Amino acid sequence: MQAARLHETGAPGKLRIEDVPVPEAGDGQTVVSVRAAALNHRDVFITRGLYPKIVLPRILGSDGCGEAGGRGVIVDPTIGWGPDERVWSPDASILGMPADGTFAQNVAIPNENVHAKPEHLSDEEAAALPLAGVTAYRATFVCGGLRAGETVLITGVGGGVQTFALLYAKAIGARAVVTSSRDGKLERAKALGADVAINYATTPDWHKAVRAAVGAVDLAIDSAGGDSFAKALSVIKPGGRAVTYGGTTGDATIKMFPVFWNQLSIFGTSMGSPGDFAAMLAFVSKHFIKPVIDRVYELSEIESAMQRMDDALQFGKIVLRIPSA
Amino acid sequence: MQAARLHETGAPGKLRIEDVPVPEAGDGQTVVSVRAAALNHRDVFITRGLYPKIVLPRILGSDGCGEAGGRGVIVDPTIGWGPDERVWSPDASILGMPADGTFAQNVAIPNENVHAKPEHLSDEEAAALPLAGVTAYRATFVCGGLRAGETVLITGVGGGVQTFALLYAKAIGARAVVTSSRDGKLERAKALGADVAINYATTPDWHKAVRAAVGAVDLAIDSAGGDSFAKALSVIKPGGRAVTYGGTTGDATIKMFPVFWNQLSIFGTSMGSPGDFAAMLAFVSKHFIKPVIDRVYELSEIESAMQRMDDALQFGKIVLRIPSA
Repeated sequence: MQAARLHETGAPGKLRIEDVPVPEAGDGQTVVSVRAAALNHRDVFITRGLYPKIVLPRILGSDGCGEAGGRGVIVDPTIGWGPDERVWSPDASILGMPADGTFAQNVAIPNENVHAKPEHLSDEEAAALPLAGVTAYRATFVCGGLRAGETVLITGVGGGVQTFALLYAKAIGARAVVTSSRDGKLERAKALGADVAINYATTPDWHKAVRAAVGAVDLAIDSAGGDSFAKALSVIKPGGRAVTYGGTTGDATIKMFPVFWNQLSIFGTSMGSPGDFAAMLAFVSKHFIKPVIDRVYELSEIESAMQRMDDALQFGKIVLRIPSA
Repeated sequence: MQAARLHETGAPGKLRIEDVPVPEAGDGQTVVSVRAAALNHRDVFITRGLYPKIVLPRILGSDGCGEAGGRGVIVDPTIGWGPDERVWSPDASILGMPADGTFAQNVAIPNENVHAKPEHLSDEEAAALPLAGVTAYRATFVCGGLRAGETVLITGVGGGVQTFALLYAKAIGARAVVTSSRDGKLERAKALGADVAINYATTPDWHKAVRAAVGAVDLAIDSAGGDSFAKALSVIKPGGRAVTYGGTTGDATIKMFPVFWNQLSIFGTSMGSPGDFAAMLAFVSKHFIKPVIDRVYELSEIESAMQRMDDALQFGKIVLRIPSA
């Protein structure tokens, strides 16, 4: 079968299309015929060697949609979460490292990670959902507790998780404030329902602009860390919540007084439990949420797709169409 | 009546014993004849002018125990918390600023802030309970969710809140790790049941010592902020919690990766709601918890008492005995 495989780390362009054996289903596993996959920042980090426990050679890819047992299926990429809803087990992993992933015509995954594809989604849309969709669901609702009528701040809109968080917030009737360094992404976010959109590059004091626009927010969702997280904390109303699911710009210096005096809660989150994944699928189906797709590439164009992710040019998910075997 | 009143800020020694009129009960208020009061760091901060909305002259004091309507009562010092369990209302305040407090023979407080004194406590012990007791209860259980069999880290043991947190943890069968810069306080904490006691002054890498002693903790409770809070975060196990109720040493620089990757939760807290206060009283009564009293001073010795608090020499609460009118 065709697959995009990594033999050495160094750069996003290191993935190569190869002909490799079709995987066999191990005990308790299902082989899914992949029709579409989607990229995550994780894939870029792995190609750069910026990920723990890298095993090579390996087929990357965490997100996928396809067919198994004659039905359309979608893949839960978190393998072996374990019994604790609050945190994954030390043995948990994400599809695509160390196990072979979805950038291939077939992928073998545990039976319990195979879910029915939401009926209202195309293959490409369904492929865009898993990792970003469940991360956003856990961040927005399970940790963040967002409710109708509340206001959420989503920093750095344009990435998959942020875009899903925006769609989810609008679906339940919350107000959304978004930031980006690119006006084009802010325009796209507004078209998706963002109530306030602020360019943090041209407005360095963007937290003051948030204050001026909406007063304060009930929830802030951030994956930049550093100055972004610190500023996000500063616009949360007393009793409010912050969720962090990343720290791409580094450590954050936190003023303690507003945290304890205003009784803020800060939740760290990564991915989601099997329960979160099932709840996310139900939520997406109930609200007919359609993932925002940035571009669809052929598997053979994996290098261009990875480059676009690395350049952070995308708005929404970058999807790979996988050719039939 | 006799009262310790502040006319100008500047230092803990600025409080003066004076003869002032007995307060009258306003609408919905009760006048409590105070038998004992207790000091908090807040009182020192106020004398230094380090508190918002200082009104002068004012009788300080948040903690008190005494008599009202012929029965022994204890005072809930949080006035007007409001309807939201998660956070106090913007109109809430703490007894002793801006309203006149308990360092006096009488104090007027809202009826709903008057509670029956736990029967197993002396006047001095009951006076030591309110502010530190409820802050520790909310930090340990309401926010921190400590359960039997878990391990809690309590930094800077010796202050009122930390000492209550230690007593509470041991009462439910949790394991407690404590830190202090003074060996004497560590010895006292061990006598109260602390399982591991580490001197952070002589062991700057105390977080590594925590790791070596217990592996990792389920919950960390900190009011120092800064480096203390950052190190406390570094010893929390995946899925664990941190609670901050102060930031005396300043801002904390937080590594984001362990927070989101290990799915940590961080809760800021101050004081406690009326529900927290009632639950704390029930908990203390059920477990026959006796507040740790550092020293008992006469009201006339207020200057020495405040100086001891300012010097951070105490272990447990500093109590004032109030003379009968």
